[in-house]
Amino acid sequence: MNAPSPAIDKYLDENGQRFEEELCQLLRIESVSAVAAHKADIQRAAEWVLGQFKTLGFACEVIATAGHPIVFAQSPTVAGAATVLVYGHYDVQPPDPLNEWISPPFEPTVRDGNLYARGSTDDKGQMFTHVKSAEAWIRTAGRLPVNLKYLIEGEEEVGSANLEKFVDKNRQRLACDIIVISDTSQFAPGQPAITYGLKGIAYFELRLAGPSQDLHSGVFGGAVANPANALVRMIAALINERGQIQVPGFYDDVAPVAQAEREQMRKLGFDDADFMRQLGVEALAGEEGFTTLERRWARPTCDINGLTSGYQGEGSKTVLPARASAKFSFRLVPNQDPAKIEASLRGMLAKLCPPGIKMDLVAYHGTPAVVVPLDSPYMAAASRAIEKGFGKKPVFIREGGSIPVVSTFHEKLGVDTLLLGWGQNDDNTHSPNEKFCLADFHRGIKASAHLWEELSAIRA
Amino acid sequence: MNAPSPAIDKYLDENGQRFEEELCQLLRIESVSAVAAHKADIQRAAEWVLGQFKTLGFACEVIATAGHPIVFAQSPTVAGAATVLVYGHYDVQPPDPLNEWISPPFEPTVRDGNLYARGSTDDKGQMFTHVKSAEAWIRTAGRLPVNLKYLIEGEEEVGSANLEKFVDKNRQRLACDIIVISDTSQFAPGQPAITYGLKGIAYFELRLAGPSQDLHSGVFGGAVANPANALVRMIAALINERGQIQVPGFYDDVAPVAQAEREQMRKLGFDDADFMRQLGVEALAGEEGFTTLERRWARPTCDINGLTSGYQGEGSKTVLPARASAKFSFRLVPNQDPAKIEASLRGMLAKLCPPGIKMDLVAYHGTPAVVVPLDSPYMAAASRAIEKGFGKKPVFIREGGSIPVVSTFHEKLGVDTLLLGWGQNDDNTHSPNEKFCLADFHRGIKASAHLWEELSAIRA
Repeated sequence: MNAPSPAIDKYLDENGQRFEEELCQLLRIESVSAVAAHKADIQRAAEWVLGQFKTLGFACEVIATAGHPIVFAQSPTVAGAATVLVYGHYDVQPPDPLNEWISPPFEPTVRDGNLYARGSTDDKGQMFTHVKSAEAWIRTAGRLPVNLKYLIEGEEEVGSANLEKFVDKNRQRLACDIIVISDTSQFAPGQPAITYGLKGIAYFELRLAGPSQDLHSGVFGGAVANPANALVRMIAALINERGQIQVPGFYDDVAPVAQAEREQMRKLGFDDADFMRQLGVEALAGEEGFTTLERRWARPTCDINGLTSGYQGEGSKTVLPARASAKFSFRLVPNQDPAKIEASLRGMLAKLCPPGIKMDLVAYHGTPAVVVPLDSPYMAAASRAIEKGFGKKPVFIREGGSIPVVSTFHEKLGVDTLLLGWGQNDDNTHSPNEKFCLADFHRGIKASAHLWEELSAIRA
Repeated sequence: MNAPSPAIDKYLDENGQRFEEELCQLLRIESVSAVAAHKADIQRAAEWVLGQFKTLGFACEVIATAGHPIVFAQSPTVAGAATVLVYGHYDVQPPDPLNEWISPPFEPTVRDGNLYARGSTDDKGQMFTHVKSAEAWIRTAGRLPVNLKYLIEGEEEVGSANLEKFVDKNRQRLACDIIVISDTSQFAPGQPAITYGLKGIAYFELRLAGPSQDLHSGVFGGAVANPANALVRMIAALINERGQIQVPGFYDDVAPVAQAEREQMRKLGFDDADFMRQLGVEALAGEEGFTTLERRWARPTCDINGLTSGYQGEGSKTVLPARASAKFSFRLVPNQDPAKIEASLRGMLAKLCPPGIKMDLVAYHGTPAVVVPLDSPYMAAASRAIEKGFGKKPVFIREGGSIPVVSTFHEKLGVDTLLLGWGQNDDNTHSPNEKFCLADFHRGIKASAHLWEELSAIRA
């Protein structure tokens, strides 16, 4: 089938403004998956996404899980054509710290061609490009050139635990030739990219308890173990002064970065000085012996994500806190096993925990890293589609973020994923003032529309 | 002059209930000195205290400072009698964490003979005993047997910075023979005590800043210095695994605990098992080579009072925080100089601060430790008064808490302080569910009434 490109281009032009307005509707829904109080918002977001597929005449439903619901949709069958599974998520990260947002996180606001809102890039805006590209085909050609299945979940930001079960139990229903996810970034403004590697993650919270309640630090200090003192000692032991993680056996299974790949990264011409300016720091830091891109894309890391203990208000309070806790996470590279790391970490912390302190290590989510082969016809098709949508050939990159479902798909469905990121590195995902460049939004829709055409050339 | 003891006893009996009600009025005022939003409450508390002295016909005023006001009062002159300066404070610690209070911190509530409220022991309740004892003398004998001056401040819980200036500038006005402070504890229920040693304090907040805003820990982690990672490493370095403080030169000036004093502490028969039960811990901890009492009373300590960074809500958030901070304080023993320790700490932390992190060390308050001579006639007078009020001879103890003004008085006025604590160790000062045993409140008033009589025998 020949793609009605001029008709599609015209449709995208004429409807672009409405697409933005529709995206804003979704962005206004506070679908924060980590916070139980947002349960109704989560449901509303799922129903809103469902409504989009209903309008397109797709078979679709909201499927309840033990956690947040999954939206599943399927386009009318195109016999003999490849089947593409589009994955995305309608849930978002908590918007904290709220006071650092220039415009409120759930009131989408355009400034300088960027749409500011929690979830604008991650992932409502990016996911939506693949819905609008399908609409363009349906409304112009009357049909799609490929079979599309959509799996849009509500627990990506909290570990996708129920999605994993759903994939496992619905292998037939989800059967496909290739998977498409837009939840990553371009290499730089004006330089689109396909991501072929993602880090895994193992996220923990260490909770320490000392005395049964807060005590006067003068009367009791120095004679009773202070859980905050214990916490900094235990957590500090996780990394040495050379940026190396000290959990026993942590590096045992790490796939080394091949010399050829290091060379390829070097050729991308990453500019440390630019990166520092963008982040507002005067120096970079990290594991000794690796470049910034190697650290970000190919080396495992450990970051504290939160610390809580004692008095956090204004001024001073001489309290010996009853409790202290730290949220922290490891980003993993290929071959590292989150379960093995959890077991080793648990043993290490138990040894470090001093007398008089009770420890509880909560494991939030663990997923292995993933690397996708570069030499498939799907990769080539995606590269052509992106060139048409963005006007420039994509480069091939890795990313430090984790999309747990990619390894689940590989394991359960035996299918690889195309990671086609429309975002930018400075989009502030997971941070205040998250944004999505509206030009990238429209280029993403166009690239997606071409992708359906390019993939249709690959017979199932 | 002979003390009208039976008349005073009768007056205290008949008015005890009213004294409790009056104390509750003061406890309802949320005079939290650390929090700027409570400025009006602070003023109200000062005015309330002033009202008490007005009723007694004392010369009195509320004196504005650069911070919170001071209440000063003076009884009518008794020629030839000793002059006693009573010091106390009407400000209180913040009530956080609020959710752990059984009854609200500013709604005084009696349970099992204890009055629960923030400030009940520290120091509104204890301070008030010396006001009511004066009232008993005035209303029964028509006059006091000694000259009383009262200095009741509103910044004790935030370091008494303005009081120090006030004392320095008002040496003549504050001239006295002895100072009395009730802001400490008895040794145990049924065992009153006189405190002859207090620790000093040096309180700090270390604020670290990394990237200009929170970042995605996957995309940026491992390549940008994480201020929370830096914080735990820097703060953990303050104490080693043997409980010894690692700030260079920290122990250089520490007065060793004399063998005789260690022996005397041993004789007090402190029960570690009891102490552990009271605190709800399964083991004690602290500096190697010292007993629990030695650690609490005579050895310097370092406690983290608060930690803040990143995401502290429910569940997980993969954020690389822009900022991290720790409040922490050292308790000092005789001969240690807070300024010297601050300088050494500042140098140590600057060396530990990694590239890419900006550090700001805020010094909140510093005061040296103090030890009062045991062989003065004032100490003997206090001992007799306590025996009369509490029905038992006091023991002589030290305490780990700090009352900055005691060393200020010694330095500026050249006068020693009698630390006559009516509280108990489990009164939860600085913690949720602070309480004051009502029997101790009334015994304290009686001891105070006798104290004025005992001190009147010492000629000025």
